[in-house]
Amino acid sequence: MSAGAGPPSRRRTASERLHEVLLDAAQDVLDREGLAGVTVRAVAREAEVAPMGVYNRFGNKDGLLGALAVRALNDLWHAVDVDRSVAPEPRFRQACDGYRHFALAHPRRYALVFGGGGPVARTGSEASVYGHAVFEVLIELVQDLAGGRTPRGFADVGEAAQVVWTALHGAVHLESGGIGQVSGSPDTYRRLIDLLVRSLR
Amino acid sequence: MSAGAGPPSRRRTASERLHEVLLDAAQDVLDREGLAGVTVRAVAREAEVAPMGVYNRFGNKDGLLGALAVRALNDLWHAVDVDRSVAPEPRFRQACDGYRHFALAHPRRYALVFGGGGPVARTGSEASVYGHAVFEVLIELVQDLAGGRTPRGFADVGEAAQVVWTALHGAVHLESGGIGQVSGSPDTYRRLIDLLVRSLR
Repeated sequence: MSAGAGPPSRRRTASERLHEVLLDAAQDVLDREGLAGVTVRAVAREAEVAPMGVYNRFGNKDGLLGALAVRALNDLWHAVDVDRSVAPEPRFRQACDGYRHFALAHPRRYALVFGGGGPVARTGSEASVYGHAVFEVLIELVQDLAGGRTPRGFADVGEAAQVVWTALHGAVHLESGGIGQVSGSPDTYRRLIDLLVRSLR
Repeated sequence: MSAGAGPPSRRRTASERLHEVLLDAAQDVLDREGLAGVTVRAVAREAEVAPMGVYNRFGNKDGLLGALAVRALNDLWHAVDVDRSVAPEPRFRQACDGYRHFALAHPRRYALVFGGGGPVARTGSEASVYGHAVFEVLIELVQDLAGGRTPRGFADVGEAAQVVWTALHGAVHLESGGIGQVSGSPDTYRRLIDLLVRSLR
């Protein structure tokens, strides 16, 4: 966007702030009541505005969930985007820890994003674009871990990143659901990361 | 159970058959409407019996879901329990394929079992016992794959089996949700199995 176009900056800021207020409210409802609870009416009540204010901005429930998914993916992006000055292996491990931390700290945001059938699964949605941005970080982490080469046994680094992601997802999803056959989930996660590092390096 | 105890076998068989009829009905409701749809009333309607017939047998919704989870885990057990005459590596691969096939063919049964917060998460429940039986199959597969040794980098074979399971779960859960960043999910699954085989052998 060019700086000269659009409404004066003061007014735009107020509009952006309302957007944030409504999104904060929607996220609170999501965290407290889960996906089913996120309705235009519930979010309006939470933010103490008229339902029309939410409709005008997000349309319907799908619009709300899409915006929430974008925010969650943006936070997840920050959680895995470790400083490039860190060496590849510790950077990969820190990013994996960041991924786990996000998933366990915000299980309902994580489920919205990766629970299936949500906004991320819709090709071309804004959420799917943000999802891909997170995946790009993972690709770079895997590539750097493998010394810039394609990891052994994979056609390309994207395929390897996809496998890494599925494994991380499985671990945090089971841990967050309280399902495990051996005790000590943090240990399981560390062992998984060890295995991935050994395989990809 | 001893054969001499209990009611005459003819009557017991009828009772067992009613149990199966109700469970079939509950499973149909689950497959069609998901977890939220499985109520005593819905299952009674599906089976064309009075609700009291379902209450008497399963108590409440939790009882129904527990019985459904046990049945699903029993089917999953059959899906991963490959004939011991098959060599360790192809046996491991076949079991992993069986796991994926079950999850994709019956996404709602799979979600009931491993979706979190369900009957399997309750320590001491019948479902948790069946869940552990499936895990025992996985432990044996991993142990045989590793030539009877503890796979490198793990404290014991159970820990390695847990890591394998989390990875398989992540892959099928994302695939069943239609979420992936690279196309060709069956390929991703195969690459994951390749990576696991390389790491554990």
